[in-house]
Amino acid sequence: MLKKNVLVIGGGPAGLEAARGVADLGYPVKIIEKADRLGGMPILADYAALTPNMVNAEEAMGEMIQRIENDELIDICTSTEVIGVSGSSPEINVNLKGPEGEEHIQPGSVIVATGFKHFDPGKETQMYGYYEFDDVITLVDTEKMLKAGKFVRPSTGEPPKQVCFIQCVGSRDRQIGNAWCSKVCCGIASKEAIEIRHLLPDCKVFVFYIDMRMYGFWEDEIYWKAQEKYKVNFIRGIVTEVTKRGDQVVVKGEDTTMGRPMEVPMDVVILSVGMEPSEGTSRMAELFQLPLESHGYIESIGGALNTVVTSVPGIFVAGAAGGPADLEDSVSMGGAAALKAASYLRKTGLLAA
Amino acid sequence: MLKKNVLVIGGGPAGLEAARGVADLGYPVKIIEKADRLGGMPILADYAALTPNMVNAEEAMGEMIQRIENDELIDICTSTEVIGVSGSSPEINVNLKGPEGEEHIQPGSVIVATGFKHFDPGKETQMYGYYEFDDVITLVDTEKMLKAGKFVRPSTGEPPKQVCFIQCVGSRDRQIGNAWCSKVCCGIASKEAIEIRHLLPDCKVFVFYIDMRMYGFWEDEIYWKAQEKYKVNFIRGIVTEVTKRGDQVVVKGEDTTMGRPMEVPMDVVILSVGMEPSEGTSRMAELFQLPLESHGYIESIGGALNTVVTSVPGIFVAGAAGGPADLEDSVSMGGAAALKAASYLRKTGLLAA
Repeated sequence: MLKKNVLVIGGGPAGLEAARGVADLGYPVKIIEKADRLGGMPILADYAALTPNMVNAEEAMGEMIQRIENDELIDICTSTEVIGVSGSSPEINVNLKGPEGEEHIQPGSVIVATGFKHFDPGKETQMYGYYEFDDVITLVDTEKMLKAGKFVRPSTGEPPKQVCFIQCVGSRDRQIGNAWCSKVCCGIASKEAIEIRHLLPDCKVFVFYIDMRMYGFWEDEIYWKAQEKYKVNFIRGIVTEVTKRGDQVVVKGEDTTMGRPMEVPMDVVILSVGMEPSEGTSRMAELFQLPLESHGYIESIGGALNTVVTSVPGIFVAGAAGGPADLEDSVSMGGAAALKAASYLRKTGLLAA
Repeated sequence: MLKKNVLVIGGGPAGLEAARGVADLGYPVKIIEKADRLGGMPILADYAALTPNMVNAEEAMGEMIQRIENDELIDICTSTEVIGVSGSSPEINVNLKGPEGEEHIQPGSVIVATGFKHFDPGKETQMYGYYEFDDVITLVDTEKMLKAGKFVRPSTGEPPKQVCFIQCVGSRDRQIGNAWCSKVCCGIASKEAIEIRHLLPDCKVFVFYIDMRMYGFWEDEIYWKAQEKYKVNFIRGIVTEVTKRGDQVVVKGEDTTMGRPMEVPMDVVILSVGMEPSEGTSRMAELFQLPLESHGYIESIGGALNTVVTSVPGIFVAGAAGGPADLEDSVSMGGAAALKAASYLRKTGLLAA
């Protein structure tokens, strides 16, 4: 028998679950991560609490990481990237570059779990003034502050009195080329709104939205909770401009429920930036010759009934590399991809000796 | 070694994927289904096309079924139910009742994939007149007609000229006790709206909604398509009553975008009924002593980072038995549960000889 393992690319929730899953079946796995530590976006972008259960991101991801450490079946390589791919399964050659130089491997199967990147709201959406005004920040900037146990106006360092979230920044927007809904931003904004109200009971918090996409249990576990227990104000509206007046930022637009224009001064404006395919995801698609679906994510074949199988034999996709995904999606896909990759080794006789 | 297999309960998308997954790893599996055929809700409730890819439900589910047939590792038992459970893993006793009488088995692991039931809109929500007016039907009734290639007014058998969907029937409703969002109804209603417009180009179609929860790629693949290509009218509104006038049904409520009361005559009103835990799900929770989460679905432990593991060793949950789930969720969870169940057999030394 050939001695082959599964290569998992990406150390976020999907990749960690996939690596654990492959090893749980008794198969060897190598997990590589471009960054210098595992954990993916929740760790690298300093998330405070995870949505929807509001558990501490560092602790929860720490547990996932711990579950793959010190396992002789799992080879963990951080600061490691795929730099070249040739051949095809079962003779697929992958060149890696890590801290100790280059390495050539021949994995039996590959799981691409390279995730997403946050939309950059300065790049294409100028109207929100992200790079102009200090007090216009993103969901991600907010996570960093919340993780540090505080929430302040960046321009003054003082606690704000009035804060708003603007939803769908970089999502549902044909003009910037991102037609998709990023799925998680409504939940994350509501979660952060709760955290801000918890930290600053005197601060008013508004969420300007088109549709609140609080599916499943998020409806009452986050959305109702935010409204009823934390008195967060959800306003259906369209924001057309963010400008500055005195030392405040002013949000202009239309309250579409009341049918009237609105112009509200805010101390901090938080842009609910969506997901885009990460550079790693685009790069892996290119290297492994994985077709992209119409939005630029890695395509799985078979539609809704086949979530992790790509059109390239032996190569699977998990998590937000395949499209906007919440943590549940990423973890379920990680498990499903582990199953498919291990089964692929078994069927093709590529099991480790 | 003890000879143990995995028992999969439920022959819908999650169960079928789980059974295939376990067998793909080389482990034996028995899949049981209460109904006389496999396929779950898409088959038993006569779905026309699946959301979001609009593939023929019978063909797509037929392919899933075909993939588990004629496999010596997979024992398929239809018309079979669990009638008793005792002991706990690894000595769990399950009594089944099938066409040939009762059977006692000792599975090494169990995957509960018993799904959901559609909310009954007559039972608790009287205001929509489901049992009073022939022309008030549900998403499910509509699927049946669409599957038969037609869409008519039930009262006359003629094609309707004006049709509407009312969203969130049995969901997001504290009064009836269903706080959750059922996740898929916005997508399914939009899909059916497209199908009706395709069949009857002269029929006007309206969707009355609170929030259109068209997450991920559903946004442009169904929602924009429905509006732009099929001219479906989406109206943000609250429907308070459905009454009868002459031979039409009249929808009364408020258009919350325009801020005005509405009263619109319709030939057919379609209630977008949500999901509830199925009787099988409640019954399995009871028999296997699986804790329920606060909404009455089977609880997975570990929040978002652990989607299929229950608090009972060796028992896993997949699909809508664990909460509102779309097809992607069900299939990913089916794969993830197969992985966990197979790993459980391996770790506990319960592998088949």
